Amino acid sequence: MITGKNYIGNALSAKGEMTYQTLNPKLNVANATSFTEATSEEIDLAVALAYQAFDTYQHISGEKRAAFMHAIADEIEALGDTLVTTYMSETGLPEGRAKGERGRTLGQLRMFADLIKTEDWRNPTISGEANELRQYLMPLGPVVVFGASNFPLAYSTAGGDTASALAAGCPVIVKSHPMHAGTGELVASAIQKAVQKTGMPHGVFSNLNSAGIEVGVQLVKHPMVKAVGFTGSIRGGRALYDLASQREEPIPVFAEMGSINPVIVTQNALNARSEEIAQTYADSITLGVGQFCTNPGLILGIKSPEFTTFTQNLGEKTAAIDANCMLHPNIHTAYEKNGAAVISQPDTTVVAMHQDTVQENYAQAKIGTVSGDAFLKNPKLHQEVFGPFSLVVQCDDTQQLLQIISQLEGQLTGTILAEQEDYKDLSPLIERLQNRVGRIIFNGVPTGVAVVDAMTHGGPYPASTDSRFTAVGNQAIKRWVRPFSYQGFPEELLPAFLK
Amino acid sequence: MITGKNYIGNALSAKGEMTYQTLNPKLNVANATSFTEATSEEIDLAVALAYQAFDTYQHISGEKRAAFMHAIADEIEALGDTLVTTYMSETGLPEGRAKGERGRTLGQLRMFADLIKTEDWRNPTISGEANELRQYLMPLGPVVVFGASNFPLAYSTAGGDTASALAAGCPVIVKSHPMHAGTGELVASAIQKAVQKTGMPHGVFSNLNSAGIEVGVQLVKHPMVKAVGFTGSIRGGRALYDLASQREEPIPVFAEMGSINPVIVTQNALNARSEEIAQTYADSITLGVGQFCTNPGLILGIKSPEFTTFTQNLGEKTAAIDANCMLHPNIHTAYEKNGAAVISQPDTTVVAMHQDTVQENYAQAKIGTVSGDAFLKNPKLHQEVFGPFSLVVQCDDTQQLLQIISQLEGQLTGTILAEQEDYKDLSPLIERLQNRVGRIIFNGVPTGVAVVDAMTHGGPYPASTDSRFTAVGNQAIKRWVRPFSYQGFPEELLPAFLK
Repeated sequence: MITGKNYIGNALSAKGEMTYQTLNPKLNVANATSFTEATSEEIDLAVALAYQAFDTYQHISGEKRAAFMHAIADEIEALGDTLVTTYMSETGLPEGRAKGERGRTLGQLRMFADLIKTEDWRNPTISGEANELRQYLMPLGPVVVFGASNFPLAYSTAGGDTASALAAGCPVIVKSHPMHAGTGELVASAIQKAVQKTGMPHGVFSNLNSAGIEVGVQLVKHPMVKAVGFTGSIRGGRALYDLASQREEPIPVFAEMGSINPVIVTQNALNARSEEIAQTYADSITLGVGQFCTNPGLILGIKSPEFTTFTQNLGEKTAAIDANCMLHPNIHTAYEKNGAAVISQPDTTVVAMHQDTVQENYAQAKIGTVSGDAFLKNPKLHQEVFGPFSLVVQCDDTQQLLQIISQLEGQLTGTILAEQEDYKDLSPLIERLQNRVGRIIFNGVPTGVAVVDAMTHGGPYPASTDSRFTAVGNQAIKRWVRPFSYQGFPEELLPAFLK
Repeated sequence: MITGKNYIGNALSAKGEMTYQTLNPKLNVANATSFTEATSEEIDLAVALAYQAFDTYQHISGEKRAAFMHAIADEIEALGDTLVTTYMSETGLPEGRAKGERGRTLGQLRMFADLIKTEDWRNPTISGEANELRQYLMPLGPVVVFGASNFPLAYSTAGGDTASALAAGCPVIVKSHPMHAGTGELVASAIQKAVQKTGMPHGVFSNLNSAGIEVGVQLVKHPMVKAVGFTGSIRGGRALYDLASQREEPIPVFAEMGSINPVIVTQNALNARSEEIAQTYADSITLGVGQFCTNPGLILGIKSPEFTTFTQNLGEKTAAIDANCMLHPNIHTAYEKNGAAVISQPDTTVVAMHQDTVQENYAQAKIGTVSGDAFLKNPKLHQEVFGPFSLVVQCDDTQQLLQIISQLEGQLTGTILAEQEDYKDLSPLIERLQNRVGRIIFNGVPTGVAVVDAMTHGGPYPASTDSRFTAVGNQAIKRWVRPFSYQGFPEELLPAFLK
């Protein structure tokens, strides 16, 4: 069922010489299928087909595009256990996570289908003298999607970026993630079936294999590509952003990238529930082996005997959690390396780390700590360590805490753990934090992103390359559309929803 | 009343050595005031004050920010004739235009004031489990505005970009346009008065003089600047976009740039009203001496005896219109040079041009013509000639016309002149044109941009650097804001409009 070929519109293609395999990180052995890297000609063909499909696809009614998206969800469901076992074999993640993420992926596809069943999402607006101006949101053109290593379903082939772009009326070319190329191909085959079953234009979707950077570079530079969605590292996202902005015709890139998701704990919160917070955060730091963009990588408090106890407690509880397998040896190696780099900084120490001997590719969770002074002076301590790691910062006082917040790089989230008696003093903290993040969580954990209208998943750079949009929820569709106005048009030449 | 100094927050400052004067293009003599170029220190101070003001300004209620914007409008009105005569002396434009543009500027300020009186524009959204997510639009931070040479009031110091940014809650630093620095200073003085009268924070607005590029470059590169608005040439806008996207923290740039605004005339339209169209377009091409970004610079039709007659007629009517003074000798020189460059291309000829001897800086309107073949092959013919010039393209057939449209660079507008009997055949043309422009006008002229909700002033690159936004109308505020979500917040810590 998994062929290792590229999906170019409705055809399978494998013209290249270069191949690669995915890896089962739990067994540390390669999976069977050889995937053929897309050639330059195959890339050009996929983009040309997408460009051509755009002519038709953008004018297909919302109702029909919605049926297409429902069909994608249904076909993904119909993949059944094959998808789950392939997912598990390429990620080391457990069955529950595979099924949960599949559910979320189906939910997203159906959510966008519901959104576009009517044309309200296009924000149809009529104004001007004698109502001569009629505006709506129209799609930008072919969109390239780079899937995420840590969300093989929900943020990859038919994930949030693809679903929102297809919903908007944009054809999509996916640059398949090499760590889960099999999962990607299965989902691509479901989309291909849905294209055929619902009569969508050939080329509205393609899936290109690639283990290197060349395919992605060629896609982003292609003049017929009009926007890019990406989820991954700062380095990767920035490289694509740079390519896109240096084109003769620059195009928008929405890259959702790094974040250390600061958490601020007040003294009152510690007094009231230090144990409970330590357990909740040990769980949050190690959830999904820490491989979430909203993982709490930075915990800030003001030094006190209680904060010292909390730090110790958090370390012990985190270290006590069973070790688990990371997505890929490269990710595990980076975790070890980046964690060690943080801990080796001046004044930085390990509070606790998981002690059991672990299998290959399993992560040993770790908590570090550092003074507020040292953290302020050293940007290396602000780097994301992707995995089950968090750094606890012992601030001298509120002023230093506020200074640290003000100087932090942009983040997806910030969290405040506080008690009612703190409320009257929280404004300065909330205001500063708000200028650095896309979302503030109160007395909760940042992990777990609800797919709802009021969700902001994005934030000031480098959390994302364009903080004016969210990557999660219905409003993610806005990334792929632009306003367009008809002026003085006769009724019969207007789309029905603008009459 | 005009000091030639920089307005840095509430203070006047002139620490630099370099000065420049504006020029009266009608008299071709320099105006009296010497303007002092802002120094590097003055720029840093203006930005630091804006950054600091942002802390306060973003939390000032919509009602109070609205009062500030009304006060700006009132203070500009109170400048009375001084503003009108200064405007005229720096632009060569007539009194009627000065007053009309002032009216539009006041209208825009009051429109944004009305918009922010309630918080609906922030798109407050509540969803998620137990309504725990509450999202709204919050301002990005300090915005730098580069005024337009051709709209000293409506798209400069207190123009659309400044008004929408201040409305959004962003402090503004204006890089004053050197061609109308006196007009700019008068408006800046009005804003300064409004700041003081309504108790807005020091630094919420600054106006910096600059005749070169250094001030603009330093502003766009400044880490505390969070967004840029620009109206002007492709070269200028692209340079700023490149600077902004190469920053360590890239920032959004909304540059409204070049456009030749294609106009398509059908055979039926010519049969019905060739004379009338020729007169209407002669007037549109020469309106404001052709110095509008929506000037119709390209007229497309299918060759026929009637189209030849129309072309001749358009040429004669355009040439017959009284010559008028351009904004500046540099703009006049560029008009002559760029017009000559187009006319000197292979197969390109002059249909007619204004014949009277004209005063210095007065533009001789000109109509050129070329075959569809030659136009398709030669991108030099697609260049904007800023001024009273239009190129008529004689296409072989509908197919060639559609091909030309499909291959055109992005445009602010496109216009279709057609009759009822054409309607059934217009879909392919409308669909292609729509993918290249922000607005299509039916049986009208592109000049004249209504400041209403349904207006799209923007379009695919190079019409603008980000087609996902409009520069005109209430929705222009969206350029300067980002979504932000509160999660699980207690009522008393939420802004009133999210409770």
